[in-house]
Amino acid sequence: MNKFTDTSNRKMAKLIKKKKHEIGLSPDELIFRGTKKTEKVLLRIIDFDANSLIEEVVKKVKDIVEFQYKDTVTWINIDGLHNTEIMQELATTFNFDSMVMAEVMNTDARPRVIEYDNCALITIKMLSQEGNSGDTIVENLSLILTESVLISFQERRGDIFEPVRERIRKQKKRIRNGGTDYLTFALLDIVIDNYLYVLSLLGEKVEKLEENLLVNPGKDVINQINSYKRELNFLRKSIKPAKEMIFSLAKMDSELITEATDVHFKELQDNISQASDVSDGYRDILSDQLNIYHTTISSKLNDIMKFLTVFSVIFIPLTFIAGIYGTNFEYVPELGYKYSYFIMWIVMIAVAIGMLIFFKRKKWF
Amino acid sequence: MNKFTDTSNRKMAKLIKKKKHEIGLSPDELIFRGTKKTEKVLLRIIDFDANSLIEEVVKKVKDIVEFQYKDTVTWINIDGLHNTEIMQELATTFNFDSMVMAEVMNTDARPRVIEYDNCALITIKMLSQEGNSGDTIVENLSLILTESVLISFQERRGDIFEPVRERIRKQKKRIRNGGTDYLTFALLDIVIDNYLYVLSLLGEKVEKLEENLLVNPGKDVINQINSYKRELNFLRKSIKPAKEMIFSLAKMDSELITEATDVHFKELQDNISQASDVSDGYRDILSDQLNIYHTTISSKLNDIMKFLTVFSVIFIPLTFIAGIYGTNFEYVPELGYKYSYFIMWIVMIAVAIGMLIFFKRKKWF
Amino acid sequence: MNKFTDTSNRKMAKLIKKKKHEIGLSPDELIFRGTKKTEKVLLRIIDFDANSLIEEVVKKVKDIVEFQYKDTVTWINIDGLHNTEIMQELATTFNFDSMVMAEVMNTDARPRVIEYDNCALITIKMLSQEGNSGDTIVENLSLILTESVLISFQERRGDIFEPVRERIRKQKKRIRNGGTDYLTFALLDIVIDNYLYVLSLLGEKVEKLEENLLVNPGKDVINQINSYKRELNFLRKSIKPAKEMIFSLAKMDSELITEATDVHFKELQDNISQASDVSDGYRDILSDQLNIYHTTISSKLNDIMKFLTVFSVIFIPLTFIAGIYGTNFEYVPELGYKYSYFIMWIVMIAVAIGMLIFFKRKKWF
Amino acid sequence: MNKFTDTSNRKMAKLIKKKKHEIGLSPDELIFRGTKKTEKVLLRIIDFDANSLIEEVVKKVKDIVEFQYKDTVTWINIDGLHNTEIMQELATTFNFDSMVMAEVMNTDARPRVIEYDNCALITIKMLSQEGNSGDTIVENLSLILTESVLISFQERRGDIFEPVRERIRKQKKRIRNGGTDYLTFALLDIVIDNYLYVLSLLGEKVEKLEENLLVNPGKDVINQINSYKRELNFLRKSIKPAKEMIFSLAKMDSELITEATDVHFKELQDNISQASDVSDGYRDILSDQLNIYHTTISSKLNDIMKFLTVFSVIFIPLTFIAGIYGTNFEYVPELGYKYSYFIMWIVMIAVAIGMLIFFKRKKWF
Amino acid sequence: MNKFTDTSNRKMAKLIKKKKHEIGLSPDELIFRGTKKTEKVLLRIIDFDANSLIEEVVKKVKDIVEFQYKDTVTWINIDGLHNTEIMQELATTFNFDSMVMAEVMNTDARPRVIEYDNCALITIKMLSQEGNSGDTIVENLSLILTESVLISFQERRGDIFEPVRERIRKQKKRIRNGGTDYLTFALLDIVIDNYLYVLSLLGEKVEKLEENLLVNPGKDVINQINSYKRELNFLRKSIKPAKEMIFSLAKMDSELITEATDVHFKELQDNISQASDVSDGYRDILSDQLNIYHTTISSKLNDIMKFLTVFSVIFIPLTFIAGIYGTNFEYVPELGYKYSYFIMWIVMIAVAIGMLIFFKRKKWF
Repeated sequence: MNKFTDTSNRKMAKLIKKKKHEIGLSPDELIFRGTKKTEKVLLRIIDFDANSLIEEVVKKVKDIVEFQYKDTVTWINIDGLHNTEIMQELATTFNFDSMVMAEVMNTDARPRVIEYDNCALITIKMLSQEGNSGDTIVENLSLILTESVLISFQERRGDIFEPVRERIRKQKKRIRNGGTDYLTFALLDIVIDNYLYVLSLLGEKVEKLEENLLVNPGKDVINQINSYKRELNFLRKSIKPAKEMIFSLAKMDSELITEATDVHFKELQDNISQASDVSDGYRDILSDQLNIYHTTISSKLNDIMKFLTVFSVIFIPLTFIAGIYGTNFEYVPELGYKYSYFIMWIVMIAVAIGMLIFFKRKKWF
Repeated sequence: MNKFTDTSNRKMAKLIKKKKHEIGLSPDELIFRGTKKTEKVLLRIIDFDANSLIEEVVKKVKDIVEFQYKDTVTWINIDGLHNTEIMQELATTFNFDSMVMAEVMNTDARPRVIEYDNCALITIKMLSQEGNSGDTIVENLSLILTESVLISFQERRGDIFEPVRERIRKQKKRIRNGGTDYLTFALLDIVIDNYLYVLSLLGEKVEKLEENLLVNPGKDVINQINSYKRELNFLRKSIKPAKEMIFSLAKMDSELITEATDVHFKELQDNISQASDVSDGYRDILSDQLNIYHTTISSKLNDIMKFLTVFSVIFIPLTFIAGIYGTNFEYVPELGYKYSYFIMWIVMIAVAIGMLIFFKRKKWF
Repeated sequence: MNKFTDTSNRKMAKLIKKKKHEIGLSPDELIFRGTKKTEKVLLRIIDFDANSLIEEVVKKVKDIVEFQYKDTVTWINIDGLHNTEIMQELATTFNFDSMVMAEVMNTDARPRVIEYDNCALITIKMLSQEGNSGDTIVENLSLILTESVLISFQERRGDIFEPVRERIRKQKKRIRNGGTDYLTFALLDIVIDNYLYVLSLLGEKVEKLEENLLVNPGKDVINQINSYKRELNFLRKSIKPAKEMIFSLAKMDSELITEATDVHFKELQDNISQASDVSDGYRDILSDQLNIYHTTISSKLNDIMKFLTVFSVIFIPLTFIAGIYGTNFEYVPELGYKYSYFIMWIVMIAVAIGMLIFFKRKKWF
Repeated sequence: MNKFTDTSNRKMAKLIKKKKHEIGLSPDELIFRGTKKTEKVLLRIIDFDANSLIEEVVKKVKDIVEFQYKDTVTWINIDGLHNTEIMQELATTFNFDSMVMAEVMNTDARPRVIEYDNCALITIKMLSQEGNSGDTIVENLSLILTESVLISFQERRGDIFEPVRERIRKQKKRIRNGGTDYLTFALLDIVIDNYLYVLSLLGEKVEKLEENLLVNPGKDVINQINSYKRELNFLRKSIKPAKEMIFSLAKMDSELITEATDVHFKELQDNISQASDVSDGYRDILSDQLNIYHTTISSKLNDIMKFLTVFSVIFIPLTFIAGIYGTNFEYVPELGYKYSYFIMWIVMIAVAIGMLIFFKRKKWF
Repeated sequence: MNKFTDTSNRKMAKLIKKKKHEIGLSPDELIFRGTKKTEKVLLRIIDFDANSLIEEVVKKVKDIVEFQYKDTVTWINIDGLHNTEIMQELATTFNFDSMVMAEVMNTDARPRVIEYDNCALITIKMLSQEGNSGDTIVENLSLILTESVLISFQERRGDIFEPVRERIRKQKKRIRNGGTDYLTFALLDIVIDNYLYVLSLLGEKVEKLEENLLVNPGKDVINQINSYKRELNFLRKSIKPAKEMIFSLAKMDSELITEATDVHFKELQDNISQASDVSDGYRDILSDQLNIYHTTISSKLNDIMKFLTVFSVIFIPLTFIAGIYGTNFEYVPELGYKYSYFIMWIVMIAVAIGMLIFFKRKKWF
């Protein structure tokens, strides 16, 4: 029970956000509004074009400066958002509006696309499965997209984007020839693939439940259904606004997104729609399961009650007969006959059998 | 029960999709993501115009090349998607974007229309009824539409499009004079007709259920309703996105679709809308049936309980009276009278009849 | 019960449509897909302008030819669709696209408007009340609208449009001066008026039910509510797509519809919206009635059960007391006193009255 | 009960409309389709501009003619619609399309705006509270708007627009300087204010119910909730299409409405939206109340049943014990001991107390 | 209970509004339609640009006049709306349309944006938590926006906007350089932040409830759920129209809002959407909690009833056996045997144990 309460709190906590002292802050105030999830901020750079590839981990923002003016695509991945100094330096280096970094540090914000003069900011929730506990982790991903640089901000260190790095390293033609917009697509594609993956993990649990439901619907089933419903609602909270965001991204008329990648963003739309469909599907299944559970339970209870009632009812006339001959009247003719007692037994058994047949015919048990 | 569990798993399985190792793959990677459903890939070609007709089965992609440059309409039907080599050759032969073939091989994708530079890709789910088991089979159909060639990809060998071939062979004027766009319409029309057919098969089962429901609502009825509901949901999962796709196809402003076929695509819209209406209709009927079932069951239970309770209640005062005269008080005046025992019986019968009349008047049973 | 099953089948049958052998037919194949509802095809012609009026029944299509080239408005009413020969002749005479007649003969199609090069096709479902049985009949009406000719196709012989003929005969100014578009409006107006009429007939039955519901909610009430719900759903199946059709007709930008009749088509929109509102209203009323019925029934059951339980409970301590003095202990002091038996009665009556007062105060019965 | 049935019929009657003989009538036939609600038709005229004001009651339509050509704003208020002669004269005098007056006389029509060549017709339902019975009365209001004349048609004599007349008499600047469009706004504003007023009267009743619900939920509560729900649905039937109408009025691009009054029509939109919101709010409250009622009732029943069951169950072992010592075996050792009877009592009391403690601990009553 | 009734009335009162005497008032009549919530009207002025800052409290409207013509941004904050004289003076001073001030004084109006010739009026509901009672207070905020002056009207004195004043005083660059549009954004941002804050306070209560629900679902839980549901509905009544307003504000094409602040208004949209999402989330949680509560309660009741029934049923055959040997037949062979009594006990115990095992196996308790 404890565990259940805990996870539910953890999840509900995502809905609660505004603290009193945060009200009225200037929107470009650089304050980290999330929970610090990693110790040290890590800056990883991959700089590439069709022919060249540089990959390194840098310590300071100024080590990035050189990449800014190159024609190549530069992908700066930053794990950890709590260091306001680094944020400030990034803003200065790339000449971002002061609001951009404030937005990045506000990890509670809704998924969205904002266009600024010299860049576009894309934020989305990443869902992943924690290895040990099997808990679903939500993390805010922010992407700042300029013509030749893509900066991605993650809250914790993770290797979620490793497949993309791998594709870059292996000289996959399309990604090495694409711009920052194609890289953006590749990253978002992984995020949405993870939605589908997390959904399918939940789906397997729901399937297993299905079998239990039909074989042996115990009390834990209802708790599990409720807990899966909650988990699903929790996932939907990320998927729904992400869908909105992806659709408005695909409609966006920005120079940062070339026509060639339009078709890829359409694919993103299809994938997020599919994620949304799948989550709808599981919601329907869970609500059907809940109905089946309730029907099963109540029909089982009805059967028990009917059995017990029929059982009781059969004894009622028998006990009545016994009561009759327990009376102490002086003149009860039946009492004197030698076989009365046995006749009483025969009558009782006849009554009982008669009632049983009657109930059986009426299909009452 | 076993069978039920199986089918439900099979159906739910359609919702689960993303495997961990698939996350982050390049979108133009040619990987077959479905289940291999046929042994050998079969390539069938029909090449026709108003006057000529060539129909043959080819072994290799290069046998197709010749048709490409002819003015006639060439319909290449390919059963089986797992051979990446053939896919690669097709892409090279027709100069398709590398993503096109990747899309075709991804059989889990949502129904959609994508326009590329030199072709349009249409994917839709085909529903058909398996002969023996009566199970509904879902299969992904992909159509690549160019100006003079239509390539259709099916997952398994089937004769679903035989009526169209027949119409081509019989020199039906319209189809022989039409272009690839009319051929596309003809194929999609068959797919949607099959939706309606599969729905009407389900409908017949629902109808039969209706009769059972009113005559003898046993426990299997609830299982059947739930199983039909699930089956219907399963069909709706294919019909709903197909409707979206057909509507966006009809709105598409492509040179590949001539104005003359516009009216046919409008017809497709009407047909898929009808399929959607019919599925809505059955959903309503099933949910009504569920309500009727629950009402019938609960009203039946109430009647039983009322009967049993009334029965018990009638004996309660009788047993009480017998109890009174079972007491061992020394001075109970009634015990000594000769006819007391008979009077007791008369009183008891009078009480019982009085209660019966009271309950009958109150319409309690 | 039999009757109920029958009507339900008849109604559900409307949802089931596609037969296996119909899949893949060419869309311009002239096949009558409905049920033959009249023996002989009847062709009635009314040809009129502001000054002249010709009304006759013709036997062959070629008798119509002459009217085609006149400046007058020609209304050809055809009862019966199963004669493909006549259909073919009509298509040739008026030079219709081959698909037009195929559409007319497909009586299962959804209400819709299709514009062709030289005509527009309007299909809608007509609802009418059968005289004897009170059953609602659905019939497909198709209108082919050209500049000077309006052809209306009905499945069975009927006098539903008699009021329009009457208005034409009586030289009503507006209809005699109007074109085929005004005539179209007049016919559709009658169809929609009939929707409202059929709805109001159902409404009267629902009203009567309302009274029964409050006075004496028997078991037939629930059957009636369910049957009316079904009937209403059945009507809504025709009204909903008709509404879509009328709205798209009013938006249509065709030369066949003059600006002067625009205001009339707006009126059609209002009327069909009203029909839709009324059907929504009855749906709400029926679902409220269902709730009230269930509440009434369950509250009645609760009252009975409470009464019976209270009744039983009152006897429980009394029977216990009698039991106590039925024991055969040698030393039970009370047994020897002369008035014990009477005291026992007094105690019993006191206990019973005490409990009655307690339950009454608690308002338990 | 009688009263309830009556009002429900009266209200439901609003949904039923089409009579058989009305089907197929020409749309410009001048037939009064409502119920005659006033004896004599009353024509009241107010003619004003910023400086002058004429107010009089005329007997015949021809007395109005003179005002038609003046530059002033003329407001003709007509109470009673059943006099077709007057209607005809009005149409001739102002040169209205013959359909306009037919529309005005059709009091069952849906709220709507229709633009004609030389005028616009606005119809809306007026809600008002009848003084004595507290019943809500629905009346159709039609406004014909021309450049300098506004004709308002009411079904019965009423002083609902008295505040507007007062404002005109008191030389309120805005209304005296405004045109017919501002006057239209002023009248519609009163109609919508009355929606809010009627809603708030219902709201007060709902509030009172709320208190009853928590203090003493008797059976009349459920009847009241259902009756208020019905009343609210009835109001919503007027408010919903009125909202549609007001919004389409505000969007209308007519010369009859000057830019200066645009802001007022926006205000109308806000007010009708508010009325719609308030009605939504009460619907939610009523449906919550229904839930609370059912929960309260069922929880109360459960408590009673639990109490009675626990009570019965406590006596069951006691009666059993008494039964044991009521047996007539020759050798029952306990029967001979002197204190057996008292020991039996002690055991019984101990068992009863033990069970009570057990049930209490389990919180079963 | 009393408290509950009170708060519910207070909240419902917000829905009721229109008083009879208010119907038909001229829309520019300066009448205070709210409840007087502060004694004296307070006028606070902050006048600033990037370099200068004047902050003062004035007594009369004419003290404001001087600021009107300055190039600086002037923010006039007015607490209290009941003084019509001041309102009149403000209108004259700033040359506002007479309707503007009437709108400001109508505190029951729906949140909205209205553009006038020389200003824009924005109204929104402010939510705040009262310190002592924890009650949520709703207050109407009106903002009149001109090119260089922003007038904000509050119903009661409050320091809700203190953070903005602080930012102005501390020379925060952005706010000191921004115009009245940026100031408007800053104020609205605080209002929406307060929505989120009030929601999160409710959220904490809902969370606590969650724990109670799982540990010990008493009767107060249902009352709390219902009261939180109502509170949430109450908040949603403010949030929903505010969302509409913010979205129409962001779409508004006014010169008063510079392009530079567009991005801020987009942020407002995101924040209000988030508030709306969060409120949806809590609604779902509360409705889930209600379901869980009902399931828990009913499953607990079922368990009790099952236990009690099983308990009773076990005694039924035992009491029957005792009854048999309580009969007074002369020839009952068993009565004479010496060990009959003990054998009866053994049989009884065996029957009881047998039944217990049977029920246990069937998992009936």
